[in-house]
Amino acid sequence: MTQDVLDRLIARIQLNRNADPQASYVAKLTAKGRAKIAQKLGEEAVETVIAAMGNDRTALVGESADLMFHLCLLLVDAGLTLDDVRAELERREGVSGIDEKASRKG
Amino acid sequence: MTQDVLDRLIARIQLNRNADPQASYVAKLTAKGRAKIAQKLGEEAVETVIAAMGNDRTALVGESADLMFHLCLLLVDAGLTLDDVRAELERREGVSGIDEKASRKG
Amino acid sequence: MTQDVLDRLIARIQLNRNADPQASYVAKLTAKGRAKIAQKLGEEAVETVIAAMGNDRTALVGESADLMFHLCLLLVDAGLTLDDVRAELERREGVSGIDEKASRKG
Amino acid sequence: MTQDVLDRLIARIQLNRNADPQASYVAKLTAKGRAKIAQKLGEEAVETVIAAMGNDRTALVGESADLMFHLCLLLVDAGLTLDDVRAELERREGVSGIDEKASRKG
Repeated sequence: MTQDVLDRLIARIQLNRNADPQASYVAKLTAKGRAKIAQKLGEEAVETVIAAMGNDRTALVGESADLMFHLCLLLVDAGLTLDDVRAELERREGVSGIDEKASRKG
Repeated sequence: MTQDVLDRLIARIQLNRNADPQASYVAKLTAKGRAKIAQKLGEEAVETVIAAMGNDRTALVGESADLMFHLCLLLVDAGLTLDDVRAELERREGVSGIDEKASRKG
Repeated sequence: MTQDVLDRLIARIQLNRNADPQASYVAKLTAKGRAKIAQKLGEEAVETVIAAMGNDRTALVGESADLMFHLCLLLVDAGLTLDDVRAELERREGVSGIDEKASRKG
Repeated sequence: MTQDVLDRLIARIQLNRNADPQASYVAKLTAKGRAKIAQKLGEEAVETVIAAMGNDRTALVGESADLMFHLCLLLVDAGLTLDDVRAELERREGVSGIDEKASRKG
């Protein structure tokens, strides 16, 4: 349990995606295919936007957790993990010591 | 540099949000207010969906990094950090040993 | 039945929004409040994006109809109709004879 | 000018999509391909959600017009028009005299 919960989440998704779709939400959504996982990510982002606009911190935390969860599911479905995203964020960090997005379109 | 890049990202956002908007994207977007930050999060989610549908792994990593970046910006704007999201994911982990979302609406 | 189906849709929404939520989807969603209507609009837009990316014309027509339906619901909830949107599109038409968006942010 | 502005919009998009991308936003976005048009639709939907949440009727009308504009652009790009969406809405009208969405997933 010393590992980051985000990495445990990735590991659990990798483990469960081939489980029984009746028993596992991860397996059920994975079985529906990439488009359905992407759709859920989009929907959770909309809910995150609405929670943020409604100034509801508890809802914002909950929706952000849903968003992270489905982002992890989508990454794993594409053969990726959060470490690929971390590597990209570190690369940008190297480019700009001051501001994450200064090296980009921003 | 032993810290998770995600937490360094949060720390940098906390540091830069009151910086000169001319020099910092974080400060510039923060100055535009909550609605603009939420809008950017929504837009990055749309781009993540499209990268996932286009089967472009490099684009998916890049858009996921953008999405994470703006989620962190939104969390910080609401006085939260990734640790609040981690705590929520750990809470769900406690509820369901098998599947993150089994304890929820899913 | 000579009226545009889009205007009949607006009229039906205006009629049904105060109906029994058990009998009417319009009434049910309206009763849940603005945020839930906006959320549904966002979700239908995500589904429209995915249908467009998947090159599925039948799905694209279906999702576009869902999107139009929820846009009308949102407009009515704000005391507006499609005529307000038509008026805005006509205003832009007046500004630019060539291209709807040339008069805008581009 | 007796035609519905929405249909004039479709006609203008059909006319302009092969125009000079320097002179026409429609031509420029069309040249970028389906994914970029879909992305813009998603972004305008996010802005519509935010305008609705912010209770800003003027912004809601403007964003709804943007959303309609990009929906028309996406439909035309797929070889469709608003009439295909109207036909679908009429079909549903036939199924349910009371409520547009009663015939659906609801």
